Parts: sequence; C-alpha cells; structure tokens
Amino acid sequence: MKNLSDQEIEKQLADLEGWEYENFALETTFEFKNFKEAFSVMTRIAFECEALNHHPDWSNVYNTLHIRLSTHDTNGVTEKDFKLAHRIEEIIVSE
Amino acid sequence: MKNLSDQEIEKQLADLEGWEYENFALETTFEFKNFKEAFSVMTRIAFECEALNHHPDWSNVYNTLHIRLSTHDTNGVTEKDFKLAHRIEEIIVSE
Repeated sequence: MKNLSDQEIEKQLADLEGWEYENFALETTFEFKNFKEAFSVMTRIAFECEALNHHPDWSNVYNTLHIRLSTHDTNGVTEKDFKLAHRIEEIIVSE
Repeated sequence: MKNLSDQEIEKQLADLEGWEYENFALETTFEFKNFKEAFSVMTRIAFECEALNHHPDWSNVYNTLHIRLSTHDTNGVTEKDFKLAHRIEEIIVSE
C-alpha cells in the first residue's frame, strides 16, 4: 500500500461529496438531527472500519461528526482511505 | 444548573480516577486493547449520555478514547458533568 499523489487524490476526491484533502488526510464533517442519529451512523461506520481493518480519527459533539482518514503506516492517503470514505458515503446516503 | 467553583471541582475530582480539570472541562483519556473494545465502551457510554441528556465532546483514534465533559449552556463544569463522569467510570471499571 503506497501513498497516492496529490494529483491522484484530487481526481478521486471528485467522486466523493463534501470531502477535502487537508493535512495529509481526507476530512469531512457531517451534521445529524441529534446525538442519537449521529451515534447510530458512527456505529454503522465502526463495523465497516473493523471489516476493512482501517480506522478513522474521528470526533463527535452532540449532532456533529468530524472524520479524518489517513493511513498511519505510510503517513499519507492511500487507496484504503478512499475505500473507507466510499463506504461511509454509502452509509450516509442510505440514512 | 450552575457552574461549580474551582474549589468544588477539585474536591469532586478526588472521587474520580484519572480525570483532570482543563480548559473549563473535565477531561480524560482511556486506552483499550483495540478499536472494537474502544467502540464497545463508547456505545455503552452513548446510552448513558442519551439517558442523562448530556453529551460529551469526544474523539477516538483506534484504541484511544479522549473525553471532554462540560456544560455548554453555562460554559463551565456543573453537577451534570460529574454525574456523567461517574457513569463513565462505572462502565470502564466493569469492562
């Protein structure tokens, strides 16, 4: 697994909604109706992370969820991050 | 619900294990075996938060969970924060 180039990252970001490349990571923030909705989505995401064996840096305050995806082993963004980002997008869209 | 004084906060902190008063909030960090253990504990905490209608600012990276408790309405630490901190401690101890 190797880091993607900036060019490759920009290209792949075009297929995602509301994600940005910041500080060598893919970042996004979601807002939900309330804490229960936010944590329900986090739980669905958690199962995907475990299945992919790839985990986010994420934080939650009430109805807000901030997610940061990067690959710690390579200290950059890899295909693993985009794979997880797409899984997260599928979960969000299905809510 | 009113903010506790610094003196009252220090007194009540003595009854908790590993929490600190920082930036007008109660803060702590827990480390677990892995992501699954960390998220399982977060889920148990989430139900308590919902029951108390009091929610943390928290972040998770793999096996690490950082929790910050404060009362947004009063912009300080109130009895609500200590109540939730004690519930969290009960959950951690029971793991």
